[in-house]
Amino acid sequence: MRFTSRTSSDGVSEQLFTLGEIPGVLWTPDGATGTRPLILLGHGGGQHKKAPDIVTRARRFVAECGFAVAAVDAPGHGDRPTDAEYDRIATENQARVDAGAELAPLIAHFQALVARQTVPEWRAVLDAVQALDHVGPGPVGYWGVSLGCGLGLPFVAAEPRVRAAVLGQGGVLTAAEAAARVTVPVEFLVQWDDERVPRAQSLALFDALASAEKTLHATPGRHGHVPAFEVESTMRFFTRHLV
Amino acid sequence: MRFTSRTSSDGVSEQLFTLGEIPGVLWTPDGATGTRPLILLGHGGGQHKKAPDIVTRARRFVAECGFAVAAVDAPGHGDRPTDAEYDRIATENQARVDAGAELAPLIAHFQALVARQTVPEWRAVLDAVQALDHVGPGPVGYWGVSLGCGLGLPFVAAEPRVRAAVLGQGGVLTAAEAAARVTVPVEFLVQWDDERVPRAQSLALFDALASAEKTLHATPGRHGHVPAFEVESTMRFFTRHLV
Repeated sequence: MRFTSRTSSDGVSEQLFTLGEIPGVLWTPDGATGTRPLILLGHGGGQHKKAPDIVTRARRFVAECGFAVAAVDAPGHGDRPTDAEYDRIATENQARVDAGAELAPLIAHFQALVARQTVPEWRAVLDAVQALDHVGPGPVGYWGVSLGCGLGLPFVAAEPRVRAAVLGQGGVLTAAEAAARVTVPVEFLVQWDDERVPRAQSLALFDALASAEKTLHATPGRHGHVPAFEVESTMRFFTRHLV
Repeated sequence: MRFTSRTSSDGVSEQLFTLGEIPGVLWTPDGATGTRPLILLGHGGGQHKKAPDIVTRARRFVAECGFAVAAVDAPGHGDRPTDAEYDRIATENQARVDAGAELAPLIAHFQALVARQTVPEWRAVLDAVQALDHVGPGPVGYWGVSLGCGLGLPFVAAEPRVRAAVLGQGGVLTAAEAAARVTVPVEFLVQWDDERVPRAQSLALFDALASAEKTLHATPGRHGHVPAFEVESTMRFFTRHLV
């Protein structure tokens, strides 16, 4: 793990790093020492580790909850090189959609493919970040919607350090099998007018989660949006389960 | 309005009252003076103004938010006399259900009938309670699920003093017409495994609300239950909109 920059503002330190080929960012409270809960934020499709929503969320989690927060670029996103194979599939999928194919199954298949790469990557990131003195081996939360849900479900299912997860804006096609292996508490965010994820598939994914404690929060609006009060709800959700 | 008793514990004053034929209870912070937000709690079917869930909720709203909280017995409930007409309908409905009829439309029709009585009753209760020095003409919230939703929707639609409402565990058959006239922010509680309200009808009622801000919170479990963390969410919801 190699740190490439460190900045600080409003009490929050931001450290850019690379772990092998993976570019990432770690936010912690200024002057933090000792173990604390860690939230891994998974960004959406076409976004990256420092997309505005990710940064805003990360800074609030650090400033208001005292958590450490990490985000990394998914393959083919942000500072990572384009991936010829993923690009080829994305181009083919777009052509299929233009020809009238249904979008959801294509997204599902693609995300399952990428997750085979990101699950071990994210576990390696957890290993490295939790080895730092100001993060340590505390409980871990995962926050990811849309692509961050598609990649996050297999990760949450596989990684026992994750004790609570915010997921959503994904359909059951994406990860029904992974969802059935998720047993930690989940707050599941739905956009009621999601133009990318059919509502019935979204509700079916919530149904498929094996978690004894799960809550679905649905608000009007299109794909990608999360109202501020529901972001605040996820902060309390993590505080309830990780602190 | 006639007060019949006053007790206090843990910083919360509880006053029993009658307003005409309506028995009610008012909870306020001990020693409160001046105007504050008022929450009207509508109880469920077969419950009453001092059912354990109602009292617990009321005391938290007072102690943690500083609100005033009022609840009254619905017709035929608690300290009110049985109503021969309502009893006759309830008995007929039970016989129809036993003979295989669908429950939801029968409940819907019955609640619409009772609401014709409770809407003016509850408006009179607001008038009387808000005339008290330690409550005053502040913003009003309404909290009611199940019967409290069926009776609450026409009330919220009709009463401009209500600025925010927690509703749910009711189906679209109950009050689609009233829902279309509700424009205040709504937090809508759904029990995912509700054995009395079909899930599709519940989601359709959320859909029918005309509110620009509305959020649906669904948790596993049967009719009547609301997990503690969702009760806490409704406290923040009211704080956001009434304070």
